Amino acid sequence: MDASTFRRMWDELLPVGRTENGYVRHSWTDADQSCRNWFRGQAEARDMAVETDRNGNLYAWWGPRRSRGAILTGSHFDSVPHGGAYDGPLGIVSAFLAVDALRERDATLQRPIGIAAFTEEEGGRFGVPCLGTRLMTGALDPDRARKLTDASGITLAEAMEAAGVDPGGLGPDPERLERLGAFVELHIEQGRALEADGDAVGVASAIWPHGRWRLTFTGEGNHAGTTLFADRRDPMLTFAFAVLAARKEARLAGGLATVGRVEVDPGATNAIAKRVDAWLDARAPDEATLNEIVSGLESKVGERAARDGTGFTSRAGSESPLVGFDEDLRDRVAALLGGAPVLPTGAGHDAGVLAAHVPTAMLFVRNETGVSHAPAETADDADCAAGVDALAAVLGDLAC
Amino acid sequence: MDASTFRRMWDELLPVGRTENGYVRHSWTDADQSCRNWFRGQAEARDMAVETDRNGNLYAWWGPRRSRGAILTGSHFDSVPHGGAYDGPLGIVSAFLAVDALRERDATLQRPIGIAAFTEEEGGRFGVPCLGTRLMTGALDPDRARKLTDASGITLAEAMEAAGVDPGGLGPDPERLERLGAFVELHIEQGRALEADGDAVGVASAIWPHGRWRLTFTGEGNHAGTTLFADRRDPMLTFAFAVLAARKEARLAGGLATVGRVEVDPGATNAIAKRVDAWLDARAPDEATLNEIVSGLESKVGERAARDGTGFTSRAGSESPLVGFDEDLRDRVAALLGGAPVLPTGAGHDAGVLAAHVPTAMLFVRNETGVSHAPAETADDADCAAGVDALAAVLGDLAC
Repeated sequence: MDASTFRRMWDELLPVGRTENGYVRHSWTDADQSCRNWFRGQAEARDMAVETDRNGNLYAWWGPRRSRGAILTGSHFDSVPHGGAYDGPLGIVSAFLAVDALRERDATLQRPIGIAAFTEEEGGRFGVPCLGTRLMTGALDPDRARKLTDASGITLAEAMEAAGVDPGGLGPDPERLERLGAFVELHIEQGRALEADGDAVGVASAIWPHGRWRLTFTGEGNHAGTTLFADRRDPMLTFAFAVLAARKEARLAGGLATVGRVEVDPGATNAIAKRVDAWLDARAPDEATLNEIVSGLESKVGERAARDGTGFTSRAGSESPLVGFDEDLRDRVAALLGGAPVLPTGAGHDAGVLAAHVPTAMLFVRNETGVSHAPAETADDADCAAGVDALAAVLGDLAC
Repeated sequence: MDASTFRRMWDELLPVGRTENGYVRHSWTDADQSCRNWFRGQAEARDMAVETDRNGNLYAWWGPRRSRGAILTGSHFDSVPHGGAYDGPLGIVSAFLAVDALRERDATLQRPIGIAAFTEEEGGRFGVPCLGTRLMTGALDPDRARKLTDASGITLAEAMEAAGVDPGGLGPDPERLERLGAFVELHIEQGRALEADGDAVGVASAIWPHGRWRLTFTGEGNHAGTTLFADRRDPMLTFAFAVLAARKEARLAGGLATVGRVEVDPGATNAIAKRVDAWLDARAPDEATLNEIVSGLESKVGERAARDGTGFTSRAGSESPLVGFDEDLRDRVAALLGGAPVLPTGAGHDAGVLAAHVPTAMLFVRNETGVSHAPAETADDADCAAGVDALAAVLGDLAC
């Protein structure tokens, strides 16, 4: 496929949800509806049947959608707040173009091919990543899901109703999963491993285990202008130490640790904080290393808190175990692509959720700068076209 | 005066503006109006004439208020968000009780005594500390003041109008300042120097120079789960270093430095920050030391930013020079109180603003825990009663 064909289709979707500061395409918003309408239009133009499942995930089918052994591809439309254009949509646009490529070469369908647009992969509105696939696989309780709220207090149930979709149907969908023969998700790489290797397309080996911890630092609120250092119990100091310690522990262990969110009470310029809450995101190649990073951090911050006279607690939030993708499928895909590099990723994906139920593979498209989850996220048109070719080859191999 | 007399009057004011988490008594709110009504009631009960000046400051007068050489005392009602009961109101309650004490001993008035309740000393609603006295002395432009907004976007002009006070009159009031012979503010100590010395009451020598700096750290927003450390430009790290460096520089120089407020963009758990803004509050015994702390910090954080690949800027906000209180008045007051200790403070006060225009003194009442600007702020009733006695002695000496 040539780069201009990719660019033509890509440009159609580009204005949807674009702001002055990146993309805001949260689930069940107007931007999301525009993406869904665009999807329906693309499917109709290709005579593909469209359906929405009980969890709000959207599908376009080439071939009889109720046949067993269907090959599913696709990704998600939604973005993180002020994210980039590629994370998610690239997998959907590439899927339609891969279908075009297969049809142009008159491939004969042995099994149906479906294109999916999963709901709220980023958790950007309701806080639970991979919302659509977690519901479908039974990993998330539908009652809990319906009560999830966004920043303005609107529940998922209310947001779905406002979008004309019945939230009463949310829940596991084992029959749909059983009908799938494989799932293949194409995604922009969120790092620079392919750039370093000089490859346009790679294959995922695994998703690193990762987790979120809420770190709480407590002290004594007091006057910033009059309280002697000896009389202070300032949790901001312990927090600052923890930020630097998290980086150091992760670096030494070969993982990743990030503090990107912090809240200070009372948060006034002339008041020593009484409490600081921070959120730690940590990931590592295996669970033992992840535990080593977090327990090392907790131990060192605990010592520092004792010196600062502050309190420190660490509470695990969501934790995701290591996801190893289907090895047979991975090797088949890598061989088909002429020995494409096989690499792990630190990011969660719907493919990671589905991998426990369906043989699953992921393709990554080179990201020259490595920037992701930010407005500057970008991929070269020629690399995106190479991604379409790779996806077409994989779908053709599996379904034709 | 016995402690129970103090407690009786103190208890009347205590419920006003009290929340489950300390006091919220911002200017021109319902809590402020309740304080002002309480003030009017106290003045009327003592046959003192009440007036509000063009800047919303409230006065009660014993004696002809337009005479020259009047002795003014008092403080402010407003609190920081979720502050303590004593910072401000103690000076007003003590002033009424000191008038009672002078009248009980049949003191003959040579000059009028006024009790002031100044508007928005803390800057807790509109962001400018000592709003009422800065306007009165011409230190704050009235056009700028009228446009100041609170957290909900209400301007000072609108808030005053809603409270039935004309904001059109805001501005310098030199005639009022000229009529004042002295200003004496009684205030709870915001530290533990008196506790260490074993004294219930002290006299202020000076207010340390202090300032606020806005520290801005810039980097590159990116995915927390996939971006290699080598590829990161994470401003949270540089910020954390700055928090620890501020403490160290101030400790070595013998001043104070605090970071109590921080804002992160985008502030998401799984996103490396692209920007962190923090506010530095720094104070020192003299301006050279203050400059040494801040320039030392800026230099060390600049070096760290270069290593982190981040940007760093520091912008001075409000800076207040050293305030030395009138030495003759200070010595006279200290001698009158039997050699009360003379001590500097790091906190700004209306007395600091007025000191440039009127001979000014401050009395401090012991604060056993040193806690201030927080709900736990407290003083012993017996110490407060000793404060009333001291204030009565000073007012009697100056006015009777």
